[in-house]
Amino acid sequence: MSDKPTALIISAHAADFVWRCGGAIALHAEKGYDVTVACLSFGERGESARLWKEGKSLDEVKAIRRGEAEAAADALGAAHLECFDLGDYPLQLEKDDKFKLVDLIRKVQPRFMMSHSQYDPYNTDHMYMTQIALECRMIAQAWGHNPGETVLGAPQLYLFEPHQTEQMGWKPDTFLDITPVWDKKRAAMECMNGQVHLWDYYTRVAQQRANHFKRNSGGMSGGRDCKYAEGFQSIFPRTVDEL
Amino acid sequence: MSDKPTALIISAHAADFVWRCGGAIALHAEKGYDVTVACLSFGERGESARLWKEGKSLDEVKAIRRGEAEAAADALGAAHLECFDLGDYPLQLEKDDKFKLVDLIRKVQPRFMMSHSQYDPYNTDHMYMTQIALECRMIAQAWGHNPGETVLGAPQLYLFEPHQTEQMGWKPDTFLDITPVWDKKRAAMECMNGQVHLWDYYTRVAQQRANHFKRNSGGMSGGRDCKYAEGFQSIFPRTVDEL
Amino acid sequence: MSDKPTALIISAHAADFVWRCGGAIALHAEKGYDVTVACLSFGERGESARLWKEGKSLDEVKAIRRGEAEAAADALGAAHLECFDLGDYPLQLEKDDKFKLVDLIRKVQPRFMMSHSQYDPYNTDHMYMTQIALECRMIAQAWGHNPGETVLGAPQLYLFEPHQTEQMGWKPDTFLDITPVWDKKRAAMECMNGQVHLWDYYTRVAQQRANHFKRNSGGMSGGRDCKYAEGFQSIFPRTVDEL
Amino acid sequence: MSDKPTALIISAHAADFVWRCGGAIALHAEKGYDVTVACLSFGERGESARLWKEGKSLDEVKAIRRGEAEAAADALGAAHLECFDLGDYPLQLEKDDKFKLVDLIRKVQPRFMMSHSQYDPYNTDHMYMTQIALECRMIAQAWGHNPGETVLGAPQLYLFEPHQTEQMGWKPDTFLDITPVWDKKRAAMECMNGQVHLWDYYTRVAQQRANHFKRNSGGMSGGRDCKYAEGFQSIFPRTVDEL
Amino acid sequence: MSDKPTALIISAHAADFVWRCGGAIALHAEKGYDVTVACLSFGERGESARLWKEGKSLDEVKAIRRGEAEAAADALGAAHLECFDLGDYPLQLEKDDKFKLVDLIRKVQPRFMMSHSQYDPYNTDHMYMTQIALECRMIAQAWGHNPGETVLGAPQLYLFEPHQTEQMGWKPDTFLDITPVWDKKRAAMECMNGQVHLWDYYTRVAQQRANHFKRNSGGMSGGRDCKYAEGFQSIFPRTVDEL
Amino acid sequence: MSDKPTALIISAHAADFVWRCGGAIALHAEKGYDVTVACLSFGERGESARLWKEGKSLDEVKAIRRGEAEAAADALGAAHLECFDLGDYPLQLEKDDKFKLVDLIRKVQPRFMMSHSQYDPYNTDHMYMTQIALECRMIAQAWGHNPGETVLGAPQLYLFEPHQTEQMGWKPDTFLDITPVWDKKRAAMECMNGQVHLWDYYTRVAQQRANHFKRNSGGMSGGRDCKYAEGFQSIFPRTVDEL
Repeated sequence: MSDKPTALIISAHAADFVWRCGGAIALHAEKGYDVTVACLSFGERGESARLWKEGKSLDEVKAIRRGEAEAAADALGAAHLECFDLGDYPLQLEKDDKFKLVDLIRKVQPRFMMSHSQYDPYNTDHMYMTQIALECRMIAQAWGHNPGETVLGAPQLYLFEPHQTEQMGWKPDTFLDITPVWDKKRAAMECMNGQVHLWDYYTRVAQQRANHFKRNSGGMSGGRDCKYAEGFQSIFPRTVDEL
Repeated sequence: MSDKPTALIISAHAADFVWRCGGAIALHAEKGYDVTVACLSFGERGESARLWKEGKSLDEVKAIRRGEAEAAADALGAAHLECFDLGDYPLQLEKDDKFKLVDLIRKVQPRFMMSHSQYDPYNTDHMYMTQIALECRMIAQAWGHNPGETVLGAPQLYLFEPHQTEQMGWKPDTFLDITPVWDKKRAAMECMNGQVHLWDYYTRVAQQRANHFKRNSGGMSGGRDCKYAEGFQSIFPRTVDEL
Repeated sequence: MSDKPTALIISAHAADFVWRCGGAIALHAEKGYDVTVACLSFGERGESARLWKEGKSLDEVKAIRRGEAEAAADALGAAHLECFDLGDYPLQLEKDDKFKLVDLIRKVQPRFMMSHSQYDPYNTDHMYMTQIALECRMIAQAWGHNPGETVLGAPQLYLFEPHQTEQMGWKPDTFLDITPVWDKKRAAMECMNGQVHLWDYYTRVAQQRANHFKRNSGGMSGGRDCKYAEGFQSIFPRTVDEL
Repeated sequence: MSDKPTALIISAHAADFVWRCGGAIALHAEKGYDVTVACLSFGERGESARLWKEGKSLDEVKAIRRGEAEAAADALGAAHLECFDLGDYPLQLEKDDKFKLVDLIRKVQPRFMMSHSQYDPYNTDHMYMTQIALECRMIAQAWGHNPGETVLGAPQLYLFEPHQTEQMGWKPDTFLDITPVWDKKRAAMECMNGQVHLWDYYTRVAQQRANHFKRNSGGMSGGRDCKYAEGFQSIFPRTVDEL
Repeated sequence: MSDKPTALIISAHAADFVWRCGGAIALHAEKGYDVTVACLSFGERGESARLWKEGKSLDEVKAIRRGEAEAAADALGAAHLECFDLGDYPLQLEKDDKFKLVDLIRKVQPRFMMSHSQYDPYNTDHMYMTQIALECRMIAQAWGHNPGETVLGAPQLYLFEPHQTEQMGWKPDTFLDITPVWDKKRAAMECMNGQVHLWDYYTRVAQQRANHFKRNSGGMSGGRDCKYAEGFQSIFPRTVDEL
Repeated sequence: MSDKPTALIISAHAADFVWRCGGAIALHAEKGYDVTVACLSFGERGESARLWKEGKSLDEVKAIRRGEAEAAADALGAAHLECFDLGDYPLQLEKDDKFKLVDLIRKVQPRFMMSHSQYDPYNTDHMYMTQIALECRMIAQAWGHNPGETVLGAPQLYLFEPHQTEQMGWKPDTFLDITPVWDKKRAAMECMNGQVHLWDYYTRVAQQRANHFKRNSGGMSGGRDCKYAEGFQSIFPRTVDEL
């Protein structure tokens, strides 16, 4: 797909990638990554309350949500936005849908992947998405799936931050400093007109995680200053040459 | 203490550092680290069965264990071996003992620290040691402890591999390739004359972990070859600028 | 549906609601709640051993089980019993079946919901039911699902007591005193002619939970006396104005 | 001690009660509770970096910290502030110290108690404090401890919010709306001159928890508005007469 | 100590062994085991409410509790009752106390050991006791502890049933049929005059566990009938020659 | 099916049973068990990289994998090998497929069953298989499923060892000495020509588990010598007459 390093974000609904890993997208884009965002649905049924209250039709809601997602992806510098349009609440993938996601994974050959937390009692689409992401990652590694195609290596699957971390059993092991690209993340969030109250909510999330970045990089004795950060949980262990 | 980067290993008994992180010591020594190994006891009462069967006295056992530890530390290229001689089975630290460990932590100012798993029903000294390591790390960060001294930053505490990982609830998140220094680790293990049966046991551990290194760095599609590895579990999250 | 406060019990098989939350149903009915019980199956295949041993046909088994469930619901004072008749061992819901459950949830607009534990290696229908309950609760909250209908708020989902609590990882955080309605629960249990041995089993469960009620409300120093109780685990946090 | 309902906060260091449950203190004080705050140490060694950097002596640090704690307790409307002055980093209680805490518990006869999370690898004083709180709660319930005194009932022990919730394995099950007393909490935080950067940090915590309060009390369909909230984890189950 | 097989029960307070593993004691005694019960305290301060209410002195309470424990041990057929008289609420062992427990472990050379659950927020003596049991088991295995004595092998440590299993995170993996010795257990319980309400409570526990015994040995298709049972959680894995 | 005792292994892919429980199969076969191995797929797509690299077709891959599985089953002395040929990566069972597995379970009437770990982020077929095994075990117990057939009792479901135990949350509670049949297991492994690098890997696994067998059967004081072992995790508790 590209000579550049690549990353793949797998998002159940159109807006998730903005709040949860918009900073990681923008930062890696600036570093030269070719970042692909896959939205399996637009969140049209379950995450567009304002539009429904205004009396929009399903097609209108989807078109508006698509537009917002595209604007946000642009603002973040994502190279590609792939909308699967599979419906939400509930999101459900048949075998062919899974294979389309496998095709994308193989096309992108990501250095790292991202998806939701493994548990979410408020939003079962989220945990279903991660289960599918693991399943499709596995299929993409199979030499017997579309023999001849380049199979996938073993990219990390990072789980981005869910809305109520403790209820979801999500525990970050990696904090990423997104201060240099904060303006882009804020701009992307402001593309989401239906969720204005979340603009400040996720700004505060980024500020709290920045405090954790500082604390964990040395605290009051040499901790690096940081204004905005994002946290991630890894599924797979790292392989390193130095600790 | 040194202009070099530093690391500190905190081991309940004299031999633990050899089996569990000998490769990490040797590898970082080769990379220019000044590595300090702290043995809180010699493992004289609980981990020297062969010597007791031979009728040795307590002093003899301790002297022999100290000698083996020194030889192993040399073989690994550790810069310093600090023997606290606090007794084992059970290991117990009073407040002054803790402060001596704090002194060492501050002197070393480690980039990373290592100790045991957080649970070990077979060996309560091990889990006690990790509890103390966390406590002393915290004291070393306190500006009011010996004011004027350089306080500690926020180094990672890696937990090295216990004997029966699953029983101890230990889950590695980092695999380190120790192939380049394998001969040194094997040599260090062979300094432990009382535990000959463990030489091959921990050789096999390193081979199994190498398989995991390869699998997690890409598996059959680009995974990096590796002959010997060690696994570690991190207590604290990482702070990074790129995923 | 009603001006009264409402509650919704979601039960995989016809009898589960009797043993596991019959007291909660009767107590809230007495307090003026309009309680709806949804049985997704009759437990005809997997929980009617005695009837099959007697040579009954499938239709006969279902009719008998329905009759028992109706009698028990009456004894408890439940306002509605909804039998979905979807089959058991295994219970399986297609998208349309889920939407029927969503319709019911929206019609009831429950102040609280109840279902099974989240894990049950003995009975996979049970854990599947809870997964579906969470999924349908989410769909019922979606403004884009049948726009114009009243969407669901955020009712608690209580998990009622499974048969072997420890194996199922179920941990109660709420004990309900059902002493005032005990006779109704016992009467409802006695409607279940095929499981006579469980009448005493669940009487003892209620007595043990009463001991826990007393102990946790003050124990030997002011604990409130209680003869029969039921325990529940909450999925979602409470929002309160006083602790 | 009082005809009023009572509450007891057990804090390892002088400032913890302000950040973590200042709202709960102020709110219950307004509701007529007699709230006692016990500070086992002043946090003089480990949580007073700014003062040490200014060259203060230990006595000066302790006096300043005591002054701040008193001012904050006043601002919150706490009825009593009990300073045990047992030292920090590490905090350590001998049997007599424990008995003094038991004396206080019995004197207060709290309707509820509060302390730290059960795990905290950054701050072992915190988890030690909770272990001691449970131990002393148990001793206070013993009829044979100072026979003749009024023994303790079974008050809830709430765990207040630690600094990095996910690392501490802390999961809130109760959100308390502290909007009516927010000004008092903010004023109390501003008594803490050495930790100015935390004023905004814990303001944001309260705003995030308010979002969770709203979401869990009904979300977009009837969720109650809330500007500031605090979260708590309960150790013991509740005993209720209605769900 | 004996040519017979042996077992060792380590109980924080005098009565624990009766309620929690009286059946196991009686059954193994009948099978020819020499069973030793170690009570580290009499439960005089914390578990003798009735006696204190009657105005007994500490010495009287201890004497009465000792008498009850002896009677119960006799009723169960325990070969030895060792009272350490170390005090309760809190129970605390110094190094010498631990060594006395080690002496007993070595003298008994048990085929299996028993103690409390690993977590108990209601009773910190219980979890402390198990921590000490693991520590002393380890010391008893040390060749350098009192060289010349017979060291301990690797007996299982079973955790017997706590009062509120789910709160303590206790999960049984072994059910023991105690029907043949039920009368002895009931008789032993009736030696405990201060806790009459627990006679029926633990009778019901045994009946519920019997249901679990039957269900897990085959259920409605060949499950073995059982009237009374006890449940245990194992700390260590089993080593077998057939599954 | 047989007068002999029976066992049933449920394997997602053709080779899993060899590496993970080949010793248990051979040992029980020698003890007179009639062991049935069910392979739900051949692992043709996901676990046959070498064959695909050689340019084999799907049918060729399946034929070769079937041949290897048959040879391995013979080498181990398994009485029956049932190939379901349902496809892999992903493995998916419709209701009819489940009923075929139920038929087999009922035909075999196993004393014990075996399958994969309950979590495996590397291989979602594995965890899916175990979920299905539990579901089908439940259906096989239902008196209303094909009335007249002999229903299943309550056989243990052992989870055999996954590739990276700690990542899968797998914790063995049973070690089986397979030294007497080691040659058969090695011979069976050597039937797997496509995974030569695993021959030594699983030889080392068996040697490490032998060390654990010895350690847990008595360690340095009477532990039974053992050269090769396998570990298993039980889902259900045991019901016993002696501890």
